[in-house]
Amino acid sequence: MATLSRRGLLGGGVAAAGVAGAFAVGHATAAEPEATPAVSSYPFRGERQAGIVTPAQDRLHFVALDVTTEDRAELVDLLKRWTDAAERMTQGAPAGPIGPVEGASDAPPDDTGEAIGLPASRLTITFGFGPTLFRDAEGRDRFGIADRRPEALEPLPHFRGDIDDPRRSGGDLCIQACADDPQVAVHAIRNLVRMGFGTTRVRWSQLGFGRTSTTSTSQDTPRNLFGFKDGTANVKAEETAALDQHIWVGPGDDAAAGWLTGGSYLVTRRINMTIEVWDRQSLGDQEAFVGRTKDTGAPLSGGKESSRPDFKMHGSQGPIIPVDAHVRVVHPDFNDGVRMLRRGYNFVDGTDDFGGLNAGLFFMAYVRDPRTHFIPVQRAMAASDAMMEYLKFTGSALFAVPPGVRAGEHVGQALFS
Amino acid sequence: MATLSRRGLLGGGVAAAGVAGAFAVGHATAAEPEATPAVSSYPFRGERQAGIVTPAQDRLHFVALDVTTEDRAELVDLLKRWTDAAERMTQGAPAGPIGPVEGASDAPPDDTGEAIGLPASRLTITFGFGPTLFRDAEGRDRFGIADRRPEALEPLPHFRGDIDDPRRSGGDLCIQACADDPQVAVHAIRNLVRMGFGTTRVRWSQLGFGRTSTTSTSQDTPRNLFGFKDGTANVKAEETAALDQHIWVGPGDDAAAGWLTGGSYLVTRRINMTIEVWDRQSLGDQEAFVGRTKDTGAPLSGGKESSRPDFKMHGSQGPIIPVDAHVRVVHPDFNDGVRMLRRGYNFVDGTDDFGGLNAGLFFMAYVRDPRTHFIPVQRAMAASDAMMEYLKFTGSALFAVPPGVRAGEHVGQALFS
Repeated sequence: MATLSRRGLLGGGVAAAGVAGAFAVGHATAAEPEATPAVSSYPFRGERQAGIVTPAQDRLHFVALDVTTEDRAELVDLLKRWTDAAERMTQGAPAGPIGPVEGASDAPPDDTGEAIGLPASRLTITFGFGPTLFRDAEGRDRFGIADRRPEALEPLPHFRGDIDDPRRSGGDLCIQACADDPQVAVHAIRNLVRMGFGTTRVRWSQLGFGRTSTTSTSQDTPRNLFGFKDGTANVKAEETAALDQHIWVGPGDDAAAGWLTGGSYLVTRRINMTIEVWDRQSLGDQEAFVGRTKDTGAPLSGGKESSRPDFKMHGSQGPIIPVDAHVRVVHPDFNDGVRMLRRGYNFVDGTDDFGGLNAGLFFMAYVRDPRTHFIPVQRAMAASDAMMEYLKFTGSALFAVPPGVRAGEHVGQALFS
Repeated sequence: MATLSRRGLLGGGVAAAGVAGAFAVGHATAAEPEATPAVSSYPFRGERQAGIVTPAQDRLHFVALDVTTEDRAELVDLLKRWTDAAERMTQGAPAGPIGPVEGASDAPPDDTGEAIGLPASRLTITFGFGPTLFRDAEGRDRFGIADRRPEALEPLPHFRGDIDDPRRSGGDLCIQACADDPQVAVHAIRNLVRMGFGTTRVRWSQLGFGRTSTTSTSQDTPRNLFGFKDGTANVKAEETAALDQHIWVGPGDDAAAGWLTGGSYLVTRRINMTIEVWDRQSLGDQEAFVGRTKDTGAPLSGGKESSRPDFKMHGSQGPIIPVDAHVRVVHPDFNDGVRMLRRGYNFVDGTDDFGGLNAGLFFMAYVRDPRTHFIPVQRAMAASDAMMEYLKFTGSALFAVPPGVRAGEHVGQALFS
């Protein structure tokens, strides 16, 4: 796909709409593995929403919103306008048809302008629906969709180690914007939030600067702020059978929520790392906590990064991979075989009250069912993972992420029709 | 300079030290103008500190620290260790000679590891000294350097519109890390802060994701979060006479502070933009506030971005560039001819208490003397700039930035010897 600058689209008057088509990213990257995808933009419409198996971009702006209206038509109208804007922006066009500088001088522009001249930067925009959209904290069915709530879409329970902060948790809606340029991701979220003024209100948001997971075999595994490779065992875009088994909601999964078939659930967890304490641990201890070497990311049982950990291998002190090592505690072998598609980002949000880094991992995982694929794994981790000593969970949310938006449809159409 | 990965340096045992040499960035870019500099690393040592006229990198991690010891020797020792680490990291090497994964397994690594495999990414590390290093809030001369304090190094005054927040203002020391990869900038600051444990403590920090100024004629002017090009009239690396006149401290500027000759002063101002209100203003009003068009950045009096504004041009409603337009209020013509070298970054620090973007511009300006080159301009802006209605100043600091570190010297050597 060619690089289209916002200016080019503006000047030439080329509409960005109508770029429908199959979501073929998985096949494209499987055919041509490469470190940096050659594509510069992804279609917004397709069988699946982009931003899930799409090769993870480098930057994130994520926002959780609450709906402030109780008018269903107003909410649906916003979803329609968001659909149009998302389709435009993912193609490198402005948020609105007029754009940042072409309108009447006595009207506010329909795009805020900070992305003028910047390419699409592989921007993806992914929408999700939180539990409280279906039934709010007071139990009210504001939009007449309570009977379509997926059974699995319950607020996540409290886990040991969670610092429950409502200002960083929950939300009626979410929007995930990923791009290779942070200004492009910020521009997308800002303009969508702006369009929602009077209908939605930002509940919390999170920027991430470094992806920690790889969602395609074409990508190298990046490092988290513990200095370790992260996401080695992630489900990849190319593993289509594993995606169907572990990530995509299947046709028979939930009779009341057929609208979610082909979609997924997104778990977000803001995980603060106690960086300064971690940095004082010995290399050997760090590797024992993780269960992998810091250098290559290979399991402590040997081999290379992609080698299967041998949990039975013993040394003179007991198992080579300790029983409380992170890699063992969360491994499918000890969790009923479940896998996740992780899409997290490193974050640094300045300095905490004690002069330490307010930093860590914004964990994002797409799963077929949080009840089987996330909650038990998090419980196991909270109970016995050696790494827990260095983590504080400061935010938590769950969203149902519908399948892709087809030509002529809008985000959430199957839910609201 | 070739791209050196951290792994390569580690494996080959090549020391990064000894990369001395003249700071020739200005000449290099003047000879070969290009959008992205071809160099992948800059020497740490030289006549000037890198990170001032260096073509502005895309990402920033800035930290202000307080010194917690009262032992001069301990502070000087840290400056020496910082010098070594900064020299290493700017060349793409680990913070310490052992590195993140080669040490004994029973000792903490001397590098935290999250930058393993990442190139130098044009990292620059720039050090500065705040007023309180010379005389603290209680008036104490902790390190025996009060008589060497530059006269101009006084805490900035309160300006109208300032929300004085000590948690985001001041500091005994500062370190500015700029790089094209945020993980590289974060890694540098994290490791320097770690080395200071017990000697220094982080007072505040700021990440920036998009540069707003161009410091070389080789760069395009980027946009701030108002959507406008910013930094058009900046002093550029190629303007050597203007640098001597406006940016570098001259030999006769301050008899008591000869150690600062060839250095500069850094003003930092955290400027929150009231994004949501700005976005509701008409295009015409936005352009009138700025005094330039949103599209090309040309002055409202016509021409192109680089055209000189004609403040005398009148239309039927009065001056074409309003008298309270930002470009006019801060223009050298109305400020005794003074110019600054700006090096600011856009920031988004999540969501404020009202669901709005906690976002804006982290303003950084290098000037020869803040008393002539910054304070009067900020006063004029506070008094009469139309843009002030959309700005909140939430942090403020001033640092003396010494000249470059020559071979065999350490940061601050002339000050402490």
